[in-house]
Amino acid sequence: MITIAVDAMGGDNAPGEICAGAVEACKEFEDIEIVLTGDTEKIKACPCQHPRIRIQHATEIIDPDEHPANAIRKKKDSSLRVAMEMVRAGDAQGCVSAGSTGAIVAGGVLVVGRLPGIDRPALGVPLPSIEKPSFMLDVGATVRCKPENLLQFALMGNIYSRKIMKVDSPEIKLLSNGTEEIKGDDTVIAARELIEHKDTLNFQGYIEGNDVVFGRADVIVCDGFNGNICLKLSEGIMLGLKSLLFDEVRKSLMAKAGMLMLAPVVKKLWSRFNYEKYGGTPLLGVKGAVLKAHGRSKSPAIVSAISAARKFIEEDGAGQISREI
Amino acid sequence: MITIAVDAMGGDNAPGEICAGAVEACKEFEDIEIVLTGDTEKIKACPCQHPRIRIQHATEIIDPDEHPANAIRKKKDSSLRVAMEMVRAGDAQGCVSAGSTGAIVAGGVLVVGRLPGIDRPALGVPLPSIEKPSFMLDVGATVRCKPENLLQFALMGNIYSRKIMKVDSPEIKLLSNGTEEIKGDDTVIAARELIEHKDTLNFQGYIEGNDVVFGRADVIVCDGFNGNICLKLSEGIMLGLKSLLFDEVRKSLMAKAGMLMLAPVVKKLWSRFNYEKYGGTPLLGVKGAVLKAHGRSKSPAIVSAISAARKFIEEDGAGQISREI
Repeated sequence: MITIAVDAMGGDNAPGEICAGAVEACKEFEDIEIVLTGDTEKIKACPCQHPRIRIQHATEIIDPDEHPANAIRKKKDSSLRVAMEMVRAGDAQGCVSAGSTGAIVAGGVLVVGRLPGIDRPALGVPLPSIEKPSFMLDVGATVRCKPENLLQFALMGNIYSRKIMKVDSPEIKLLSNGTEEIKGDDTVIAARELIEHKDTLNFQGYIEGNDVVFGRADVIVCDGFNGNICLKLSEGIMLGLKSLLFDEVRKSLMAKAGMLMLAPVVKKLWSRFNYEKYGGTPLLGVKGAVLKAHGRSKSPAIVSAISAARKFIEEDGAGQISREI
Repeated sequence: MITIAVDAMGGDNAPGEICAGAVEACKEFEDIEIVLTGDTEKIKACPCQHPRIRIQHATEIIDPDEHPANAIRKKKDSSLRVAMEMVRAGDAQGCVSAGSTGAIVAGGVLVVGRLPGIDRPALGVPLPSIEKPSFMLDVGATVRCKPENLLQFALMGNIYSRKIMKVDSPEIKLLSNGTEEIKGDDTVIAARELIEHKDTLNFQGYIEGNDVVFGRADVIVCDGFNGNICLKLSEGIMLGLKSLLFDEVRKSLMAKAGMLMLAPVVKKLWSRFNYEKYGGTPLLGVKGAVLKAHGRSKSPAIVSAISAARKFIEEDGAGQISREI
């Protein structure tokens, strides 16, 4: 049985959608049990009844605008920290939270702990794209990176792509401002030199912004500052287009009729490019499965995050990284 | 009369579309004359007849994959360099090219010359957005910036927004990985401190990726590495969505019919978010109006770039920057 601790109080829709997601996940996967961490009373008020769900009481909540490391250090009885302590103690093999990214990263490092040999952790996202998904890392754990950090991200991304996403010999590219060798800043150029000398990696040089969405790499390596901006920009464009489309359609009867007929196509595109639905971004480089769900997660996104944690544990993701680095 | 030198040989559709754009621009603006630089024979083979158009012969062309600074230095008789030499000599007040960004930036610095007091130039783009356009700089002239460069970009962006885009007291924001003060890397944090102490600027803190497309700033300041990736990523998403939409629509008769009825709306959205159509990104910080058109520019984009150059010259953009910095 796989035990996953789920922070019931993190995210915009906590605890209701988190609890609903936990119940769904238990129905879908018979080999997991879930520990919901948070205010027992509030959790019990939500539909969270399942024989494989139990509650671990926690009195505090970490706010999104708190300083992440300080909050993790001081709020020892916060729902997030309690979930992470369970991973550290071995009472759970992984944890899931839709709470503050910064606090999850800080907790991953300070509570769960880094794997030996890993300098900085990375958050990875399987990016929606046209041809095949690309796994992008880091999208916000390590804001500024040394070349050596980017090399480690490439190694971790390679393992995640092979073991979890089941890609043979993943093509790895480094995000840059052009594909020619003369492009890149000092850090990116130095990282390229480090990465291209690793025989174990199928490194294919730089990728530029316009190719990201076409899936022209299995793994896209970048620092947390750029990755975070790219991810949020993509989200923003999709949300913006959606709202603009509906505003325009509302103005004309013919457009309304057309929209009805196009609905299946639009739905398909939207579900393919819904950046909120990537459902669980792993924090790589820590001793266990630590999965961040989107802050606006509803129950389906929580199910995906739990499912991603389960897969990561099953494939011994952390162990694989530890052995190969 | 305003004289604008236009590099007839730069870009994917040169010289045909460049020449056609020059003719259109002369028809639209009676106060300009255009000098097309490049191979006289090839230019004459295109429709470029207009009383206010003449040709300045140039035998060489700069390739997109040449090292920009080397190409500018060595190819003294290239269409781009000849256009820029005209600006330096005062024979033209501005120039337009759809050629290699790197070469345009290198030529801006090495041939046209920086304005006194400017350390690094910046390429600015009026980004399409939902509510109002945002002027983003730098999108690729200065790959890695010191905090002082970002401060100068803020000052130049402020002037461009006020004088050319006619925005009163433009809201200026710095691109970062979150809006809270604790966000940003060392350079961005240091730049924020410099910018917020400038009384002449209406600085409003950080902007994150998902707000960019909603026009939640009049001026968005970032380094050339990030700006380039953001711009190309946005372009890629729009192109990707378009191709995916048409692929899907092709599969179903009902979707085809719906698409016909929705055509005006889709066209409107596309023309609003067509990142290829921003039509002329100014290189700010050099002694004259240097405008880059998109590499894939067709004649309408060339007309916009010429129109942007004309406006920049009319408003004495370079003089304004020089006086305020």
